[in-house]
Amino acid sequence: MIVVLKPGATQNTVDDMTRRIEEMGLKAHVIVGTERTVIAAVGEKRNGEQETLAACDAVDKVVPILAPYKIASCEIKSEPTVVRALDLVIGGGNVGVIAGPCSVESEEQMMLSAAQVKESGAKGLRGGAFKPRTSPYSFQGLKEEGLKLLAAARDLTGLAIVTEVMTPEHVEMVASYADVLQIGARNMQNYHLLQAVGEVDKPVLLKRGPSATMDEFLLAAEYVLDQGNSQVVLCERGIRTFESHTRFTLPLATVPYLRERTHLPIVVDPSHGTGVASLVAPMSVASVAAGADGLLLEMHPNPSEALSDGAQSLTPEQLADTMTRCQVVADALEMSFG
Amino acid sequence: MIVVLKPGATQNTVDDMTRRIEEMGLKAHVIVGTERTVIAAVGEKRNGEQETLAACDAVDKVVPILAPYKIASCEIKSEPTVVRALDLVIGGGNVGVIAGPCSVESEEQMMLSAAQVKESGAKGLRGGAFKPRTSPYSFQGLKEEGLKLLAAARDLTGLAIVTEVMTPEHVEMVASYADVLQIGARNMQNYHLLQAVGEVDKPVLLKRGPSATMDEFLLAAEYVLDQGNSQVVLCERGIRTFESHTRFTLPLATVPYLRERTHLPIVVDPSHGTGVASLVAPMSVASVAAGADGLLLEMHPNPSEALSDGAQSLTPEQLADTMTRCQVVADALEMSFG
Amino acid sequence: MIVVLKPGATQNTVDDMTRRIEEMGLKAHVIVGTERTVIAAVGEKRNGEQETLAACDAVDKVVPILAPYKIASCEIKSEPTVVRALDLVIGGGNVGVIAGPCSVESEEQMMLSAAQVKESGAKGLRGGAFKPRTSPYSFQGLKEEGLKLLAAARDLTGLAIVTEVMTPEHVEMVASYADVLQIGARNMQNYHLLQAVGEVDKPVLLKRGPSATMDEFLLAAEYVLDQGNSQVVLCERGIRTFESHTRFTLPLATVPYLRERTHLPIVVDPSHGTGVASLVAPMSVASVAAGADGLLLEMHPNPSEALSDGAQSLTPEQLADTMTRCQVVADALEMSFG
Amino acid sequence: MIVVLKPGATQNTVDDMTRRIEEMGLKAHVIVGTERTVIAAVGEKRNGEQETLAACDAVDKVVPILAPYKIASCEIKSEPTVVRALDLVIGGGNVGVIAGPCSVESEEQMMLSAAQVKESGAKGLRGGAFKPRTSPYSFQGLKEEGLKLLAAARDLTGLAIVTEVMTPEHVEMVASYADVLQIGARNMQNYHLLQAVGEVDKPVLLKRGPSATMDEFLLAAEYVLDQGNSQVVLCERGIRTFESHTRFTLPLATVPYLRERTHLPIVVDPSHGTGVASLVAPMSVASVAAGADGLLLEMHPNPSEALSDGAQSLTPEQLADTMTRCQVVADALEMSFG
Repeated sequence: MIVVLKPGATQNTVDDMTRRIEEMGLKAHVIVGTERTVIAAVGEKRNGEQETLAACDAVDKVVPILAPYKIASCEIKSEPTVVRALDLVIGGGNVGVIAGPCSVESEEQMMLSAAQVKESGAKGLRGGAFKPRTSPYSFQGLKEEGLKLLAAARDLTGLAIVTEVMTPEHVEMVASYADVLQIGARNMQNYHLLQAVGEVDKPVLLKRGPSATMDEFLLAAEYVLDQGNSQVVLCERGIRTFESHTRFTLPLATVPYLRERTHLPIVVDPSHGTGVASLVAPMSVASVAAGADGLLLEMHPNPSEALSDGAQSLTPEQLADTMTRCQVVADALEMSFG
Repeated sequence: MIVVLKPGATQNTVDDMTRRIEEMGLKAHVIVGTERTVIAAVGEKRNGEQETLAACDAVDKVVPILAPYKIASCEIKSEPTVVRALDLVIGGGNVGVIAGPCSVESEEQMMLSAAQVKESGAKGLRGGAFKPRTSPYSFQGLKEEGLKLLAAARDLTGLAIVTEVMTPEHVEMVASYADVLQIGARNMQNYHLLQAVGEVDKPVLLKRGPSATMDEFLLAAEYVLDQGNSQVVLCERGIRTFESHTRFTLPLATVPYLRERTHLPIVVDPSHGTGVASLVAPMSVASVAAGADGLLLEMHPNPSEALSDGAQSLTPEQLADTMTRCQVVADALEMSFG
Repeated sequence: MIVVLKPGATQNTVDDMTRRIEEMGLKAHVIVGTERTVIAAVGEKRNGEQETLAACDAVDKVVPILAPYKIASCEIKSEPTVVRALDLVIGGGNVGVIAGPCSVESEEQMMLSAAQVKESGAKGLRGGAFKPRTSPYSFQGLKEEGLKLLAAARDLTGLAIVTEVMTPEHVEMVASYADVLQIGARNMQNYHLLQAVGEVDKPVLLKRGPSATMDEFLLAAEYVLDQGNSQVVLCERGIRTFESHTRFTLPLATVPYLRERTHLPIVVDPSHGTGVASLVAPMSVASVAAGADGLLLEMHPNPSEALSDGAQSLTPEQLADTMTRCQVVADALEMSFG
Repeated sequence: MIVVLKPGATQNTVDDMTRRIEEMGLKAHVIVGTERTVIAAVGEKRNGEQETLAACDAVDKVVPILAPYKIASCEIKSEPTVVRALDLVIGGGNVGVIAGPCSVESEEQMMLSAAQVKESGAKGLRGGAFKPRTSPYSFQGLKEEGLKLLAAARDLTGLAIVTEVMTPEHVEMVASYADVLQIGARNMQNYHLLQAVGEVDKPVLLKRGPSATMDEFLLAAEYVLDQGNSQVVLCERGIRTFESHTRFTLPLATVPYLRERTHLPIVVDPSHGTGVASLVAPMSVASVAAGADGLLLEMHPNPSEALSDGAQSLTPEQLADTMTRCQVVADALEMSFG
C-alpha cells in the first residue's frame, strides 16, 4: 500500500511512520516528492494495516494496491467456475436461465408457472417462500408450505429450484428443499447468513446490494467461499442511483468488469434491475450480449394478480419471446443458452 | 391512491379498472383529463393494492397518497417519544450523547475509554463486541467477552451501554448485557433481526441503511414497533452517493424532515457520516443546530492503534472539545445536552 | 395534475384551492379520502401551474400526470426520426457508428485516425477541436485549426464529422466545418447554447448530463427542437453514481425507456460510459442488443500517446474487433450496422 | 503520482514505463511488491501526465498525490479570502446573508422583497433576471428589465445585488448592474462563461454542480481565478442522490472539508439544497454551526404567487425567524452575522 503523508511532514514524522510500518512486518520505501512525502509499504497481508495507518495523525491517506479479496480472485484460480444444479448450468460459456414468480402464492399458481417456465426453455425455477418485504404489512410468503410447493414443481418439471433464505436458522430447512440458495440484496452483508450458507453443500446465488461496491460484493462472496462452499454465483440486480424512471439502475458493465477479476459466474436480474416489464426483454438480450453467464427473470401466469412485484413480471408469452430473442444473440455469439 | 392509465385507454378499460378497484373494497373516482384518464381509489389500507394495480397492463403508474408506515407516524402519536437508558435521555428537548470506541479491544482500552467518555459529559458508551466487517479477514470483535467488558465499564461509570446485535440468535445474550441494542446499517432490512429486537424490553437504536429511503427507514422501525417495542431511536449515519472525499454523505436534512413525520427521536452519527475525524466536530455542532435528539461519536484513547475505524475516531481531547462546542450551541437553542 | 392537500384540510381550504385551480383555467375534481383530500386538476398546459400550486401552504405535494416535453414525444410523432449526415444513418433500424480520437491533436494523428475509422466500417468520425476540460491546465484543443483538420479528414475519407461546440458564439464557425454538432454532457443545460444550435441546419448530437433525469434530458432536446431544428440525436454516456470502478455508470435501460417515449434516435457512448478500454467492446455489443440506434466510440492510433482520455480509447485493432462483434449481433437482430 | 502496474509485469515493461516517466521530466522510483510492482513518479506538474500514463497497456491505475488545483489551494495562500460587496461581507469570521426571490417578477414584487430583506438584517439581495429553466415553456426571466429593477432595489435599500449570468455575451451587461455575479449549478463547467467572469472586476458566486466532486468544484473556481479574478465565493447548493424526499441532498460536510483545502469563502444555499420551505430554517442554523461563511436564501413576499421555486421560498416572516435563530447560534460561536 502507499501511505501519503500530510504536507510538511518532518524527518521525525517520516522516521516514526517508517518504524510503525516495519513493526507490522512490512518493508518501507520512502519517496520524497516536491510537495509530499509518500511511503510505499511492501508485503501487505490484508490484516487491517491499512486502516491502522490511515488513522495516524501524520497520514493524509492510504492507497491500497492489492484487491482485498483472495479466494474469489482470478489471480488464485484462472479457469472459470461453472455452477450446476440439475440441468441448470451457469458459467463456462453456458447462459443459464432461472425464471418464475416473485412469490410462491398457491399450488395452482406454482404448477402453472413451472409448466410455463419449462416450456420456455429455462432450466431453473425461481419463487420466494420467505419474502423480505419493505413493509411489515405486505405479504410475507407461504414459508415452509411454499418450499414444499417448489419441491413439487421440481418433481413435475425437473427444473432446478432457486429460492431465498433470509436468516441463519432457516438455512438447513431451505437447503432441504432447494437446489440453489439465494441471498437477497438486503442481506448481502448479513455475515452470519453468509457464513451459514457457506457451510452447506448447495450452490449460492448472491445478489449485489443496491449500494455495494465491487469490492464489497466480492468480499461478501468471500465470506461464503471462506467457509468452504465454492459454488457461488454473483448476481447483478441493479443499484440505487438518482434515477427514478426505473426501479433501480442496471449497470451491465458489472459483467465484463467482474469477468476480469473473478472466476465466479455472473448472472443478471433485469426484472429487479429495471422494475418495468417492458424493459426486461431488451435488457435480457443486452445482458447476454455483455457476456452474462445467466439470467434471473420474473414471470407470473397473470402479473396483475400477483401478490408482489407484478409490475416487473413478464407474462408467459413475454417470457417465451424474451427467450427467443436471447437465443438468437447467444447463437450469434456462440454461447449455449437456456 | 391515484391510478394513472396509459394514453388512449378505452371506456372498456376504464370500466374494467373501476371494477377491480371496487373489488378491493375501495371507492373509485374516474377523472377524464385532456390527454389521460386517472382513477382515484379511496379507502386504501396499505395491503398491497398499489402493487397489484401497478401490474395491470392498462396502468401507467400508481401514485400513493398515504405514507406506508403507521405506528411510527406523527398522525398516530403527536407527542415526541423520549427514550431513556440509565442517565441517557434522547428526545423531547434532550440531546443525548453516546461516545466510545468502534470496537471493544481489551479491558484496558475499554476502561480507559469509559472513563474518558464519562469525563466528557456523555451519558452513553458505545463499543462493538460483534463487528460486522466488510472483509472476512478483518477483526470480528471479542464477542461475548466484549459484552462482559462493556458491562464492567457500566459498573465503573454508570454510562448506558449501546452495542450492536447482528443476528436473531444473539439478541437475548446481547440484551442481557446492554442497555440499548444497536441495529447496524447493513442490517436495517434484516427483518428477522428487527422482529427479534421488537420482542425485547430494551431500547433499539436503528441505523439508516446507506441507500435507504425515508419510507424504507420508517418501515424498518415499523417492524420493531409492530412487535410491541416502542423504544426506537432512529440514527442517520450517512448515505452512499458519488461523493468520495468523505466516507459517506451526511444529509442533515433528515433530522427536520423526520421530525415532521415521526414522533421517534432522531440521532446523528457524524463519525460514520464523514469518516474523517477532523470533520466530526463541525458536523456534531451542525447536528445539534439542525435539531438532532442525540449524537453517536467514535472516540478511541489512541486512534492510530485502533483495530477498526481509527481514521474517524476522535481522541479524548477532540471529544472534550466537540462536547464543549455542542454545549454552547445547545445552550443557545435552549436544549438540554449531554 | 393531482394536488394532494396536507392532513386535516378544512372545507375552507379545499374551497380556496379549488378556486385557485379554476382561476388557472383548469377544471377541479375534489376527492375526499379517508385520511387525505386530493384535487385533480384537469386541462394542464405545462405553464408552471404545478410549481405555483406546490408552493401553497395547504398543499403537501403536486403529482404531474403529463410528461413535460411535447415535440420530442411519441404522442406527437409516432414514426421514428432518422438522422442522416453523408453516409451516416442513425435510427429507423440503422445503427450508425461514429468513432475517432477524443481530441484532434495533429494532422498526422487525424489522417491516420480517419483512415482507420473508415477501414473499420464506421461512417462517422469524431474528434474534439474545442475541448471542455475539468482543469484549466489541461490541453484545451486545437480550436479552429482542429476543425480544419477534421474537414480535411472528411475530404479524404467521406466520413461525416461529429465535433463539439462549447459556446453560442462558436456555433456558426463549428457548423461551417462539421456535419453533426455535438453538445457535451457538461453543457446539456446550457440553454443559450441549445437555442443557438436549434437555429442551425445541422443535426445535433445531445449528450445526457451525468446527473440528468430522463425528463431533463428530453426537455434539453426540446430547447433545440423548439427552435425549429428537428435533427436531434440523444446520447447516453453514463451517469454519476457511487460506483468508482468505472468512470461513470452506463445505464443501458435508457435505450428502451426512451424508445417508448420519444421518436428521436438514441445512441450510446460506452467509452465515456465506462472509462475503461477493455469494457468498451462488451458494452458496445450490449448497446446494439438493447436496441441502440448508434454508437460513439473513442479510438486513437496510439492510446498511450493521447493528449486526453487515453485510458478509454480503443486501439485500431480493438475498434475493428468491436465492430465485428457488433455486426454479428446486429445481423442476428436484423438491424443495419455501420 | 503512483503508477500501479498490472500483475505479472516483466522487467522489460518496468524498464519501458520507467523510461516513459523519465521522458516526462519526472523521477521514477520502482518498488517491487510481493504481488505488484508500482512506480512512484516524482516532480508532477499537473500537465496531463497522469492521463497519459493511465492509458498505457501495462498500467492498472495511476494514483495522484497532489491536488489538481493550485491558486484555490490553502497551500498557496493560507489566510482566508474575504469577499465584500457594499455592506455584504463573506468570510473571515463574517457570515454574510443574501436573500430574495428566485426570479425578478415585477417592480412591486422586487421593491417589496428588497424592503423585507433589508428589514431581516441580510446585506445581500438575490433575484434572477436571466433564469435557466429546465423546460423551454417555463418563465425565463425579465432579462435586462429585471436587472434594472434589481439596481433600483439597491438604490432603495443599499443591499448588494447578487444575480445570475448565463452566457459569456451577457457578462458585461450583467456586471454593469450587479454587485456579485452568480454562476448557476448548471453552468459550473461552462468554461467559456467561467473565463468571461474571470476577466471582470466583480465578485463571483460559483454554485456547485449537482454531480460535481470537490476537485471539479475547485477546478471550476480555478478557471475564474486563473483569469485574474480573485474574488470567488464557493456555494454548496445540494447534490443529486437517490434521495427524493428533498429536492437535492445537502451535504454540509462540504463546509469543513473545503475549509481545510481552500482559502476561498464557502456559503450554503439551503433553499435549493432542500427544496422545502419548512426545512430551510433548521438547515440554515446548521450551516452556520458547521462554519459556513454565508447563506443564500429564497424569500418571496407571497410564495404561492411566485413564478418559480415557490415551494422552497420562505415568507418574510419565516425569513425573519430564520435570521433570528441563526443570529443566536452565530453569537454563541462568536461569529459576525448578517
